Amino acid sequence: MAEATNIVWHAGQVMVEERQGISRVRPAIVWLTGLSGSGKSTLAMALEKPLVERGHLAFVLDGDNVRHGLNKNLGFSDADRRENIRRVGEVAKLFLSAGVMPITSFISPFRADRESVRALVGPREFIEIFVDAPIEVCEQRDPKGLYKKARAALAAGKGLQFTGIDSPYEPPRKPEIHLRTDLMAVEQCVKTVLAYLKDRGCLLA
Amino acid sequence: MAEATNIVWHAGQVMVEERQGISRVRPAIVWLTGLSGSGKSTLAMALEKPLVERGHLAFVLDGDNVRHGLNKNLGFSDADRRENIRRVGEVAKLFLSAGVMPITSFISPFRADRESVRALVGPREFIEIFVDAPIEVCEQRDPKGLYKKARAALAAGKGLQFTGIDSPYEPPRKPEIHLRTDLMAVEQCVKTVLAYLKDRGCLLA
Repeated sequence: MAEATNIVWHAGQVMVEERQGISRVRPAIVWLTGLSGSGKSTLAMALEKPLVERGHLAFVLDGDNVRHGLNKNLGFSDADRRENIRRVGEVAKLFLSAGVMPITSFISPFRADRESVRALVGPREFIEIFVDAPIEVCEQRDPKGLYKKARAALAAGKGLQFTGIDSPYEPPRKPEIHLRTDLMAVEQCVKTVLAYLKDRGCLLA
Repeated sequence: MAEATNIVWHAGQVMVEERQGISRVRPAIVWLTGLSGSGKSTLAMALEKPLVERGHLAFVLDGDNVRHGLNKNLGFSDADRRENIRRVGEVAKLFLSAGVMPITSFISPFRADRESVRALVGPREFIEIFVDAPIEVCEQRDPKGLYKKARAALAAGKGLQFTGIDSPYEPPRKPEIHLRTDLMAVEQCVKTVLAYLKDRGCLLA
């Protein structure tokens, strides 16, 4: 097999259209941002389900699968939050390249970080969804007991850098979609986003 | 719509089978390891192409799309190489969860790092492929001129920590597949891997 050593190795080229023909999405990052308790994870999962059921390959990136894996070496300082979002943006970009629609569910409190991700992939591939509820509502929901903990820490004179309590949340100025989860049922929110994705041509027949 | 505020938000659950019905793979990480110039990237792309053409959603993770993006803040010290491979392993795991077959193309010189990834996802979802050619052959190919640079640096008394020159490469002890790219043509290597993936049940009809 000596002749084989002279064979030129050509790089393969997979067309974007071929991938999208399998995944049936023309993907964009569906970027959910909002306070803890605003309903991001619930919405993310409630969106992913009908998409996949209808044959569109979407995938949720959230704290559960990122903070405990890829980003387990990051804390909650401003610098680490920024690096957290940067990495999530880069991973979401890889998913786009793979032909999969990433749905990201992170507080992502800083406007500049979200805009960095938008710039990374380009505005046509970034859909910012403001998952919005008044902080009083979020604090009342407090699904993980985090507000309670933050308030207690604050009362004890120790800051936790908790978004909305002792760390800022910068709301989107012009999100593609603005959902008030205290006023709309989750099913309605899902319908709104699905209709938007369809109109935008993200869902291939 | 006040009543909507009382609606319980249920978490969606997407079944693995539903994803795999779209992506037509029962995915495992196809982990290529070997010296620079051994043919990892060429093989990765040559594998990806027929998979996607036949409707199986595979995706190459390599230095081009990872070192310049997700891992652009990492260098080539031992610690950074380790973190590089750790992050690649975590991203590959996310791809598995999404139902996509990741093909990773990194030198990944340290056995312990590769074994960490195997442990991260479990042995059933890790296929280690030793892309092997004698270093003399790799150095002669030198597709990116990196060996030349490393030799020059070494001659000038400056180490570059270049794998195979002044940094070790630890070959796999029991890789799932061992390919000698100096003895086999790329087409033959691709056939070997595709047949293995099929036998292993990774490719869904």
